[in-house]
Parts: sequence; C-alpha cells; structure tokens
Amino acid sequence: MESRVRMALLYDFYGPLLTKRQQYFMELYFGEDLSLGEIAAEFNVSRQAVYDILNRAEAALQGYEERLKLVEGFFTEKERRAQLKQLVSILQRSGLTTEQDKITAEIMALLDAMGPEGD
Amino acid sequence: MESRVRMALLYDFYGPLLTKRQQYFMELYFGEDLSLGEIAAEFNVSRQAVYDILNRAEAALQGYEERLKLVEGFFTEKERRAQLKQLVSILQRSGLTTEQDKITAEIMALLDAMGPEGD
Repeated sequence: MESRVRMALLYDFYGPLLTKRQQYFMELYFGEDLSLGEIAAEFNVSRQAVYDILNRAEAALQGYEERLKLVEGFFTEKERRAQLKQLVSILQRSGLTTEQDKITAEIMALLDAMGPEGD
Repeated sequence: MESRVRMALLYDFYGPLLTKRQQYFMELYFGEDLSLGEIAAEFNVSRQAVYDILNRAEAALQGYEERLKLVEGFFTEKERRAQLKQLVSILQRSGLTTEQDKITAEIMALLDAMGPEGD
C-alpha cells in the first residue's frame, strides 16, 4: 500500500466518490489508525477481506488522481499562496502609508481565506 | 437537459471520469455544437441512443459535482482572485516606491498564474 499520508490526502479529495463501505474502512484505517486485524475483528470478517476492500479503495483513489490531478494541483496552488504571502509580508515591512497598509492587510486576509499555505 | 454552458463547465472539471464514448459524444454535442440528429446520423444510431448516452453522461457529471463540488469551489476562488487583483492594482496606483512597485508586479504575476479572474 501507499504511504498513509498520501492516502489520507487522496481520501480528503476523492473520498466522497468511494462507496460508503470503502469510506468507512478507510476512515478506520487511515483516520482512526486501526490495524487491518483490528478492523477485521470488529466486523467479524477476515483480515484478507479488509485488505481487499482497502486495496480497491486505494486503487480507485489513485485512478481519480490520475485523471483529475487535484492533489497535484493543490500543491502548486499551495506553493503559490505561500509565495504570495511572503511577498505581501515583505511589502508590509517596507514602510507603507497607512492607506497602503490597510490595503495590504485586506490582501493578506483574502489570501488566508484561500487556504493553508503549508508547513 | 441542463444549460450547455453549465454542462461544458462540468465537463471541463469531470470529463476525464467519463467513459471514452461519453467523452466523445459530449465533445460533439457541447464542444462542436452538433445536434442530437447530426450525431445520430454520423454514427448511424438512433437519435434516442445519442440522447440516452448524453443523458447518462450528464447525470454522471452532476453526481461528481454533488460529491466533490469543484465547480462551486472554482467560482469562490475565482471571485477571491478577482478581489485580490483589484486590491493589488489599487496599491499599484497609490504611489509606491520603485522597490515596492517591483514586489507588487511579482504579486500580480503570481495571481495571474493562478487562473482567470473574469466572468
């Protein structure tokens, strides 16, 4: 299987396209961090059955990413937002007038509303 | 059927998730602007068959939008980008120093790279 972080990210974007059962198992495994064995025990199914469902869910998520590339695009946008915020904060420290300062504060607030700029 | 504009937009976002045949018919109908009858004649199938395929494709696209809401999110982002650009252009006309002006030009270039702001 792919890394948990990568899967959690794919799940964030495409989770609503999975079946309810796939969503439930993904949440237990990637969200609640239960092991395959723990999920199997809880649902009284084989470890293999849990593995198969998760595997099919992962393949579906990867298939969606291959076609829509939302995760890929998200990182590009996140980087641009981070660069934008850095430039705006340089402006803010460059000795602006009170009026200019007010405008840059509005710009920063809008950039914040567009999402996280990342780690 | 829904409006052509709306469908073309949904197709822009989710087209890659349709079957190849659905994609092809959608492109002829919404992209090339052929009529149902023209597509039917070209493929030697009934007008009803073309209608059914397009109808199923439309339902699929709407289902994806209901679950992922990419088109909805796109309009929110587009509006924010438009507001950002407006604020930056106000700044640019507010008597900045050469250095400040260089930074705002960079900010504008990054915003342009993020996509169209317009209607």
